[in-house]
Amino acid sequence: MLNDTAKGVYVIAVTPFTESGAIDTSSIDRMVDFYVGCGVTGITVLGMMGEAPKLTHGESVALTRQVVIRSKLPVVVGASAPGFASMAELTKAVMDVGAAGVMIAPAPTLKTDDQIVTYYANAAEAIDRDVPFVIQDYPLSTGVVMAPSVIRCIIQDNPSCVMLKHEDWPGLDKVTAMRRFTTEGTMRHISILCGNGGLFLPQEVERGADGAMTGYAFPEMLVELVYLIQSGDRSTAHDLFDRHLPLLRYEQQPGIGLAVRKYVLKRRGVIASDAQRKPAGKLSPESIAEIEWMLGRLSRESERTRDLSRAFHVA
Amino acid sequence: MLNDTAKGVYVIAVTPFTESGAIDTSSIDRMVDFYVGCGVTGITVLGMMGEAPKLTHGESVALTRQVVIRSKLPVVVGASAPGFASMAELTKAVMDVGAAGVMIAPAPTLKTDDQIVTYYANAAEAIDRDVPFVIQDYPLSTGVVMAPSVIRCIIQDNPSCVMLKHEDWPGLDKVTAMRRFTTEGTMRHISILCGNGGLFLPQEVERGADGAMTGYAFPEMLVELVYLIQSGDRSTAHDLFDRHLPLLRYEQQPGIGLAVRKYVLKRRGVIASDAQRKPAGKLSPESIAEIEWMLGRLSRESERTRDLSRAFHVA
Amino acid sequence: MLNDTAKGVYVIAVTPFTESGAIDTSSIDRMVDFYVGCGVTGITVLGMMGEAPKLTHGESVALTRQVVIRSKLPVVVGASAPGFASMAELTKAVMDVGAAGVMIAPAPTLKTDDQIVTYYANAAEAIDRDVPFVIQDYPLSTGVVMAPSVIRCIIQDNPSCVMLKHEDWPGLDKVTAMRRFTTEGTMRHISILCGNGGLFLPQEVERGADGAMTGYAFPEMLVELVYLIQSGDRSTAHDLFDRHLPLLRYEQQPGIGLAVRKYVLKRRGVIASDAQRKPAGKLSPESIAEIEWMLGRLSRESERTRDLSRAFHVA
Amino acid sequence: MLNDTAKGVYVIAVTPFTESGAIDTSSIDRMVDFYVGCGVTGITVLGMMGEAPKLTHGESVALTRQVVIRSKLPVVVGASAPGFASMAELTKAVMDVGAAGVMIAPAPTLKTDDQIVTYYANAAEAIDRDVPFVIQDYPLSTGVVMAPSVIRCIIQDNPSCVMLKHEDWPGLDKVTAMRRFTTEGTMRHISILCGNGGLFLPQEVERGADGAMTGYAFPEMLVELVYLIQSGDRSTAHDLFDRHLPLLRYEQQPGIGLAVRKYVLKRRGVIASDAQRKPAGKLSPESIAEIEWMLGRLSRESERTRDLSRAFHVA
Repeated sequence: MLNDTAKGVYVIAVTPFTESGAIDTSSIDRMVDFYVGCGVTGITVLGMMGEAPKLTHGESVALTRQVVIRSKLPVVVGASAPGFASMAELTKAVMDVGAAGVMIAPAPTLKTDDQIVTYYANAAEAIDRDVPFVIQDYPLSTGVVMAPSVIRCIIQDNPSCVMLKHEDWPGLDKVTAMRRFTTEGTMRHISILCGNGGLFLPQEVERGADGAMTGYAFPEMLVELVYLIQSGDRSTAHDLFDRHLPLLRYEQQPGIGLAVRKYVLKRRGVIASDAQRKPAGKLSPESIAEIEWMLGRLSRESERTRDLSRAFHVA
Repeated sequence: MLNDTAKGVYVIAVTPFTESGAIDTSSIDRMVDFYVGCGVTGITVLGMMGEAPKLTHGESVALTRQVVIRSKLPVVVGASAPGFASMAELTKAVMDVGAAGVMIAPAPTLKTDDQIVTYYANAAEAIDRDVPFVIQDYPLSTGVVMAPSVIRCIIQDNPSCVMLKHEDWPGLDKVTAMRRFTTEGTMRHISILCGNGGLFLPQEVERGADGAMTGYAFPEMLVELVYLIQSGDRSTAHDLFDRHLPLLRYEQQPGIGLAVRKYVLKRRGVIASDAQRKPAGKLSPESIAEIEWMLGRLSRESERTRDLSRAFHVA
Repeated sequence: MLNDTAKGVYVIAVTPFTESGAIDTSSIDRMVDFYVGCGVTGITVLGMMGEAPKLTHGESVALTRQVVIRSKLPVVVGASAPGFASMAELTKAVMDVGAAGVMIAPAPTLKTDDQIVTYYANAAEAIDRDVPFVIQDYPLSTGVVMAPSVIRCIIQDNPSCVMLKHEDWPGLDKVTAMRRFTTEGTMRHISILCGNGGLFLPQEVERGADGAMTGYAFPEMLVELVYLIQSGDRSTAHDLFDRHLPLLRYEQQPGIGLAVRKYVLKRRGVIASDAQRKPAGKLSPESIAEIEWMLGRLSRESERTRDLSRAFHVA
Repeated sequence: MLNDTAKGVYVIAVTPFTESGAIDTSSIDRMVDFYVGCGVTGITVLGMMGEAPKLTHGESVALTRQVVIRSKLPVVVGASAPGFASMAELTKAVMDVGAAGVMIAPAPTLKTDDQIVTYYANAAEAIDRDVPFVIQDYPLSTGVVMAPSVIRCIIQDNPSCVMLKHEDWPGLDKVTAMRRFTTEGTMRHISILCGNGGLFLPQEVERGADGAMTGYAFPEMLVELVYLIQSGDRSTAHDLFDRHLPLLRYEQQPGIGLAVRKYVLKRRGVIASDAQRKPAGKLSPESIAEIEWMLGRLSRESERTRDLSRAFHVA
């Protein structure tokens, strides 16, 4: 079961499909092996970048089961839903097949501080107060802005809340504020993993985050980066991050980011196809050429610096 | 199967719960009988006012089945969903138990004209092109504004689109514009039923709408009103409508409208409890007193005018 | 100077233009005389329905000056602006020509409770803490939802805040909540006037509001209604309101409401033209016919009930 | 006068204030000299990052005049406003003091394609059809998404539209689409300069954009980058860009980006103070330390690569 000591990288898994749109179970196994080989400490399925709304209930549960069994790692499942009924239904089903916890973003209709706090109280009750959950704080997508004091309320009100997936933007001072609450004794400790495609990961970990929950197509970089920062090797960490930043930024574009990510994972041999179910962002020939240019530069850079060159080999 | 000749009143059914939050199947039967007795021509379940997101998949299908069997009327099912997978899954299940068609609102993330048109093409394909569907045009709730020309595109592109649930606001000129498209020969005929709580129903029918799809707690008034307007008895129609307008306006308030509606239906003996599942708008004592005041005035008015006095008897 | 004892009706004035788009100063005088004759206790200019963004700074000040001089009543000026510089600039100018105070809506970008409270603190400072101001609470237009506790914070933090223009929707329980704060001793007394086109005015006054701040084209009805409710003559008040509700509801439509209002004011001889500067909602022939139908019914009803028949005579 | 041949870098100027909040005219001169020394081809004042809403009308005009006189370069003025009256008023005033054109973003309330096209037709008329204008396409800030075909409509309808400030996100394929319209002969040529903080500038210029309109605190890098790409020296261009990307990304954060930019400009001796008028994003000590870390790395990298080392010297 997920708890507040989680750290490292919980990679946001893509959902591999065949060209005809079926779930590609052999790519799932290969992908899980790849993630495990990268050194991730957990896997998150059915996130926004996991095409969750395009999967039926049955597919969602089957995918979770396969990832749980194959990875032997804690698996977090995105359970955000327009209503508590389907949220509870999915949560029960995935916990039954071995998930470690679920992740819940605030409903886009929420406005006031109090509405947000009430929403999480209702959600925690709906999914059952024994199920560990993660707050997903992603205003760019949900439109809901949660002040640090509101997140603290949610955490204090709900013992089953064990983690914050931080992806507010800008958000570095929010990480600092949340950690300060705990230092000051006004909030219990929770795990903080960061999303936002990893765009601010070095600073986030330096501010006290425990790691990342994102799905950049080179998860081994994320793993290494978190390790280096936490080991105090700041310059090496930033060197590593800065080499990846051009591609990472490119992958973080709303709308086509997932297409970029799946393309690179396919190029690296992790998944058989980069097909998405509809609605799907598509890569133009120009975009593909740009990605290839960045992969080429990344590969040469990694070669040149001699560190990690094997890990970053493309395809 | 739903088709473009639908008219009259497709009442938006509430979902009756017991005080403990279970689905109240005996209230469903009583409610269906009541609606049929009011003269409705169809029933819409799992609309926004039907608490759809609070029902599990199984409950949704069971509710639909019960209403289909009991009413022997065409039943439209709200199938709007964050993704096409659950939309298709629910559609298949409810069509299998006898639904006449489904209703689909645009996803709140849609922005441009072209995105909207593409969305409906994808949705029509996802639910299967044999399934009749209704466009729900409700910008106040979805935030998506569809120009008349965009709705025409959707209708022309998708033969399985047979109805527009019109509830844009303001929207009277939109009804006129849609009817003009057909008169001019640039769009095939479709059924237009109007929502928005009925707030503009007399004018909407006068502009060419075929009736109403809304759930005001006195559906017999909606039925009678549509009949009177279509019979040319305009003054009587407006007299009738104006008597109900204070309560109808009160019921149409976002957030607590459903609480008002369920309260009145309970008071009229239609459902056993006005309980809602969470999240639920609640009536304050002051609100209840205001509703009672309006019911009293409505009852006396109906008595005084001697028309329809039996129909409008409360409880 | 505006203070917390304001009551009755502060009518939202339209801005009369000639057919060529110039400000029609003789219509302004006639309109002011009309409003005064209706018994209003104050006038609000440059509100959302006053086409404020279509006036230059110079025109805004000149309009305010003319209304102040002609009416001899307290004049509130809408001063909402994208930045504090223009808000302060306009406020200084209109206070110099005799305005009684200004009205400020929250910037549409505000999200959290704390952001809203900070915004009003900054605004109060920017316009000068000697200038009385009104909070405009209109989420349907601004997208900003202010919980009662947030409004209380603004009031307690800013002594120059003297009034709440209440037009949340639904909002009746908000009026009750605000009044309860004062009864309980947790908030000082302020004036509450209600907007929302008057759609819930009887209930709002019954809940403790001091009156209306809206611009329905029959302001004498609003004046009479507030008086009747406050005199305890509830049935007469509701009879009066209900006769007007069909038209009032029609005028309250977003987008074309102002066109309806100006049309009726022109029909009643109050303003010479119903022209609007761009962007302008336009009345279709069908809409005009509907308004005329409602005016005819209203006129006959008023005749029939013999009360107020002169006041409601149309043109 | 601005025309469709504009290229290079139109730097988005900050507005320098003294610590007490007055406009700092000597910093304006120094800043203009700095920008000119960086090789920019134009200057944009009163953009979103120019704190336009915090300036009075008089200050806005005075600032424009000073920048026009000092720079001898074409000066574009942000003229977006909630209404056409103030847009026209500001435009006339700044054109009178020598501005080259104005920039207009769509009003945040616009929804349908047709509404957007109509808005620009009205705006072009309001500011006078002789005044060259720039479309600012920045959905992340305005919430308005303009399809390429809609932008084409605006351009074809309004001869005075000479430039697109492109900052949609993702937007690379939009640049390609706009250029393709011209190649195919369905749209006249316009200038395309890109914003978004420069986050995708290399790719944007490779896709056919004419340069940048953004205000990154190292404008000499933007100038050099555009030159290198247009000269075909792609690798050098990307090397240069990638060195700056960590800081550039940091500066592009919504909310505190301007604080970062002003801090760096102050550190480089360009402006005397990084003060902002309210509302102002503030840098925490942690943020300042992060910026200094990145400046240190940037400085060492520039030293190491020996290129441009003087230009990138900090303070």
